[in-house]
Amino acid sequence: MVDFNSVLEAQARISNYIHRTPVMSSVSINEMFGCELYFKCENLQKVGAFKARGACNAVFSLTDKQAALGVCTHSSGNHAQALAYAAKIRGIPCTIVIPHTAPSIKINGVRGYGAEIEFCEPSLADREEALQRVVERTGSHVVLPFNDERVIAGQGTAALELMEQVQNLDVIIAPVGGGGLLSGTLLSIHGANSVILCYGAEPEAADDALRSIRAGSIQPSIQPQTIADGLLTSLGTLTFPIIQQYVTDIVTASEPNIIAAMRIIMERVKLVVEPSGAVPLAAIMQNNAHFLGKRVGVIISGGNVDVSRLPFAATE
Amino acid sequence: MVDFNSVLEAQARISNYIHRTPVMSSVSINEMFGCELYFKCENLQKVGAFKARGACNAVFSLTDKQAALGVCTHSSGNHAQALAYAAKIRGIPCTIVIPHTAPSIKINGVRGYGAEIEFCEPSLADREEALQRVVERTGSHVVLPFNDERVIAGQGTAALELMEQVQNLDVIIAPVGGGGLLSGTLLSIHGANSVILCYGAEPEAADDALRSIRAGSIQPSIQPQTIADGLLTSLGTLTFPIIQQYVTDIVTASEPNIIAAMRIIMERVKLVVEPSGAVPLAAIMQNNAHFLGKRVGVIISGGNVDVSRLPFAATE
Repeated sequence: MVDFNSVLEAQARISNYIHRTPVMSSVSINEMFGCELYFKCENLQKVGAFKARGACNAVFSLTDKQAALGVCTHSSGNHAQALAYAAKIRGIPCTIVIPHTAPSIKINGVRGYGAEIEFCEPSLADREEALQRVVERTGSHVVLPFNDERVIAGQGTAALELMEQVQNLDVIIAPVGGGGLLSGTLLSIHGANSVILCYGAEPEAADDALRSIRAGSIQPSIQPQTIADGLLTSLGTLTFPIIQQYVTDIVTASEPNIIAAMRIIMERVKLVVEPSGAVPLAAIMQNNAHFLGKRVGVIISGGNVDVSRLPFAATE
Repeated sequence: MVDFNSVLEAQARISNYIHRTPVMSSVSINEMFGCELYFKCENLQKVGAFKARGACNAVFSLTDKQAALGVCTHSSGNHAQALAYAAKIRGIPCTIVIPHTAPSIKINGVRGYGAEIEFCEPSLADREEALQRVVERTGSHVVLPFNDERVIAGQGTAALELMEQVQNLDVIIAPVGGGGLLSGTLLSIHGANSVILCYGAEPEAADDALRSIRAGSIQPSIQPQTIADGLLTSLGTLTFPIIQQYVTDIVTASEPNIIAAMRIIMERVKLVVEPSGAVPLAAIMQNNAHFLGKRVGVIISGGNVDVSRLPFAATE
């Protein structure tokens, strides 16, 4: 079972392969929102996202015999690059199942780390079938993007670092899609016997975590449409119970607020952030009363965005 | 006379008011250019640019009696915000002479720090005349953007930090406009008895430093046109002799290379950088042979750019 010890073990296991990312703050943003915000910059992480943590923990948890057959997953997002990166560092084969409709920038990113690509149709059923074929052909080991205990433990190391870097936080807020980062963060806070409150932040347009917590069971989002493309997935069977047990609450953000928060981070903190990474600040904007006067750790999950097509670009 | 001791004194004087900015690197950029690049992130400095260093050193060098009358300058760039910031921290009045044609974002930036604005016509003669009127009216103290020993000494502290943060650098490269940053950097390197080479980087379209070094006397650029709007000014009477004495050479970058370098920094280092701040990387790209296999400190001078109008934005 994944618990605080798993996070501590992950921290020791992956420390040579990931960055201890910096924490940044901005006086002007603090004035804007009436709280002290500490941005944990996982956009400056290897592969540009916190996903490097979970993928490295999974890959370096394998025995040499397991590892020799390689690893695989289906993803067109940051997890794909993260697993390819971890496999490259360990020197083992990696196969990524990607829908043939994925943007070429994502495909090239994965190829850049030396992984093999297996194309599939864009439905979940096709992805899973293609992944199964890869496993049967190669014997390689599946590392799912969030519903995997080693991945959850790895993602939890970001909050562990944040609590070391900033003392006396009142609140931590992390984005929630499949829930790997949020559940890992909750294990870290709870395990450190901390009284820090913890919110998950998600787009209004993909509010399955909010609905799941309210309902007491997993309520998937059906074909959600949001600019925060890292948060389209719904909670998993491993992440939901942890979130249900420990989370303070889920807060949401509208699409315009996500875009506005992204721009504020770029203008004031001078960091490139992907839409999903701006969702926590957008949720603070939209639910300001929860955070007023507090010391808030904000996990900026990633920075992988096409900078030539920013959503607030002037159109003339 | 400004020398290495001035830089050391500046470091002690301003350390409470500025950030010790981080140094970042990128494996993929290193592979791209065949050298090890260490980015000194002055875009993460107070006011988003190294200019906070020089302005703070000048403002905190004043006696209480001098300071009470306030400070003033003419600038529509980062120095204006930097002086306004330094004056706010010291709690003294500040007046900035700005051409009425300056973008409102710059004017609002200065007002945000509580400085007074005095508008003038956009010519240099008009600026100087308007500044003179401010001095006569208020008795306030002029802090010029680069041709000021206290400013030069303050800017030199960035390289001092960089040499502490990264051991065994072979080269440091800094952008050169008026030469405040470059001359301060040279004083730091020389004063530390270092064998580190030092290049100034400037746009081809505003290559007055290159021409001045070649000619042995100040050769101003006449109405230069470059996207690197922080590097339009020409060397000054205080900065030129220091640069002439110590610089290894001046290297230049074309406009397309400046834009490409800006994009690379945003995509790979996830940092927002203004065009002037990307000029050193652009010059490394364009003069690659000088840097091959070397450990190179690259001063990213600032990050104040309109992120809604990036020069590589898709136009459809």
